[in-house]
Amino acid sequence: MIAELISVGTELLLGNIVNTNACYLSRKCAELGYSLYHEVTVGDNEGRLCDAISTALARADVVILTGGLGPTKDDITKEAVAKVLNRELVMDELSRKKIEDYFKFRYMNNPKHTVSENNWKQALKIDGSIIVNNNNGTAPGYIVEHNSKAVILLPGPPSEMIPMFEESIIPYLTKKQKKVFLSSMVKICGIGESRAETDIMDLIDSQSNPTIAPYAKAGEVHFRVTASADSEEEARKLIAPLVNELIRRFGINVYTTDEQETLEEVLVKLLKENNLTLSTAESCTGGMLAGRLVNVAGVSDVFGEGFVTYSNEAKMKYLQVREETLRQYGAVSSQTASEMVVGAAKAANANAALAITGIAGPDGGTSEKLVGLVYIAAYLNGSVAVNEYHLKGSRQNIRELSVIYAMDLLRRMIISQMQ
Amino acid sequence: MIAELISVGTELLLGNIVNTNACYLSRKCAELGYSLYHEVTVGDNEGRLCDAISTALARADVVILTGGLGPTKDDITKEAVAKVLNRELVMDELSRKKIEDYFKFRYMNNPKHTVSENNWKQALKIDGSIIVNNNNGTAPGYIVEHNSKAVILLPGPPSEMIPMFEESIIPYLTKKQKKVFLSSMVKICGIGESRAETDIMDLIDSQSNPTIAPYAKAGEVHFRVTASADSEEEARKLIAPLVNELIRRFGINVYTTDEQETLEEVLVKLLKENNLTLSTAESCTGGMLAGRLVNVAGVSDVFGEGFVTYSNEAKMKYLQVREETLRQYGAVSSQTASEMVVGAAKAANANAALAITGIAGPDGGTSEKLVGLVYIAAYLNGSVAVNEYHLKGSRQNIRELSVIYAMDLLRRMIISQMQ
Repeated sequence: MIAELISVGTELLLGNIVNTNACYLSRKCAELGYSLYHEVTVGDNEGRLCDAISTALARADVVILTGGLGPTKDDITKEAVAKVLNRELVMDELSRKKIEDYFKFRYMNNPKHTVSENNWKQALKIDGSIIVNNNNGTAPGYIVEHNSKAVILLPGPPSEMIPMFEESIIPYLTKKQKKVFLSSMVKICGIGESRAETDIMDLIDSQSNPTIAPYAKAGEVHFRVTASADSEEEARKLIAPLVNELIRRFGINVYTTDEQETLEEVLVKLLKENNLTLSTAESCTGGMLAGRLVNVAGVSDVFGEGFVTYSNEAKMKYLQVREETLRQYGAVSSQTASEMVVGAAKAANANAALAITGIAGPDGGTSEKLVGLVYIAAYLNGSVAVNEYHLKGSRQNIRELSVIYAMDLLRRMIISQMQ
Repeated sequence: MIAELISVGTELLLGNIVNTNACYLSRKCAELGYSLYHEVTVGDNEGRLCDAISTALARADVVILTGGLGPTKDDITKEAVAKVLNRELVMDELSRKKIEDYFKFRYMNNPKHTVSENNWKQALKIDGSIIVNNNNGTAPGYIVEHNSKAVILLPGPPSEMIPMFEESIIPYLTKKQKKVFLSSMVKICGIGESRAETDIMDLIDSQSNPTIAPYAKAGEVHFRVTASADSEEEARKLIAPLVNELIRRFGINVYTTDEQETLEEVLVKLLKENNLTLSTAESCTGGMLAGRLVNVAGVSDVFGEGFVTYSNEAKMKYLQVREETLRQYGAVSSQTASEMVVGAAKAANANAALAITGIAGPDGGTSEKLVGLVYIAAYLNGSVAVNEYHLKGSRQNIRELSVIYAMDLLRRMIISQMQ
């Protein structure tokens, strides 16, 4: 089956936002066994959008459009699809009710607030289309079946598009596809992409079914193993040996083989399983580590408090870092990181802790301590480990990598101490 | 002038990498006054690539291709352009010499290294084309003028493409373009996209030059105002009245008119200008607010410490929230938020503070307090303001919006108290 993506939005053509939707959907199409030969981006212009839809329908079985479903005058995707397919737009009462409820809920304490007229545009549907629920916004998605083909309309914001795709479109596309495509993900932290790839070059060179594809993320490498077969069971049997071989080769660097699981979830799970509680002390990351741990629903079982100690004063006041240590070694030093992590554990009466101190830049570097120098300390039941990192990239990159390496450091420490 | 982008590479269609080149080039085209109506991505397939080039040449004055210039068999961009334009590929002796030098330099410590045969493919040029230097790799770029049009071929890796574009292609495109294009951005926080647009519908309806385009971000709306003119001065004169009108209508909701400036930068600037220091206390956001403030380089002048108080114990211990308050009103209440913010300011001896407490979900909601209920408190020189929010979306969305609304609340409070 052939799929084609059309991203709609003048903001894309103006370069105001990076088209991450196209990347996400491309990957999903590949996973679901749809071949993608063209990706097209057009602006909020009816003529050009209609042309793009017609062209795509002529060469693909499934056309996926993102963007242009909102309430404004610029949002014309639904209108363009209706025009190309020669269908009417009709009011959907259920959608209308949902929009009403959404605004009632949102402005419950402000009875004077009225819903602006253009919002009702979102309750119009293409005649004969299937409405797809949007649990994260007001604009629903649509599936329009036309002859043997399907046109799928999705909202542009990734926070609405992705959950909708996962909940409703993947099941639809899976059913439409005859072969079963199944994939597993091996997620690795602690070794770089080219290194990881070199280590399994023989497997990559000899791949056919299952295939193996690397994805690099900040601080992580993910390998996706995909098999196609006539049944799920058969696909599972094809995948298993290759996944096991990857686990054998990468060992403790593998933090999960669950596609959905994040590094913070793995760490929180490990803490829970081992009855540990965690505290954090952050300087250059300034709360990002704690913020990321709190991504995990139910983190409260293991995490009650953390410290953002950006200043030296705060490091002394809350973490009992000694003035002498700061003077002699500086705030960005192995010694300070070590005292921070012990102090964070003590203050919170926790048996595990993480501390980060570094120079995220762009300023603050010296000839001795360059921008990108970061010390990460982990504490576990009285033991302390401190690692020194030399990170590259923007202030934001350096801080994000620090958060990942911190979580990974404690993950390894728990595994080696507990097992 | 009309431009069109063609990104070449099967890795893009498989979703292995995000197409940041397209975003960069789109923005540059807009800045240079080239209208971009289509962006297309195709794989390493000669037939489809030739079709895409022919289509683009029929509807654009300038066609920019990225990717497919490397040494491997998959790299066919030069071959496809030559075919469509009916030109020969000829050996360029200077390019051949450069490749030789590059490898000599790179493998200077390994005399046994030989240049693999496929590298010489990069010394072939399209007959009659202008060769564009690549100072960061072996594949040069090319400009092929054809009738009144231009086809520009650039390497795929951003680290090679971007410097080449800045050094050689911008001057070329600027010379080719007669008009000057200029744009300004008005960034708004505190009102939704459809409401904001309704408020200026008359301006949107009557736009011609300058144009006005809205962009929605989480919790924010940005309006881009763009004018074209014969000179920069003239363009500036066209933009100014419309930007001023937007500022007049949206008032305090406008937080900046600087394209590059973020909400956290504006808040940190306001704090600095008014000699304020800030402390934070976060429950459901768990450090995200502090983490975002620390995005701003130089934040240390105003921010020294913050608290992640996820548990009730931590709220009492560090922020002096009273047990009685937690028992009577709960952790997610206006009263708790208020005590948190006062406690955060006192503990840090700061004259400004922000506190966030809410139910980010997916669990934790009750019939009285639904998921999405968030209280945000701001403290400024003894005054406290607490707002109640009913937010929708995923756990992550609710937390991100809370951070934005918190920064905006304090921004407004400083402006109204200080001015």
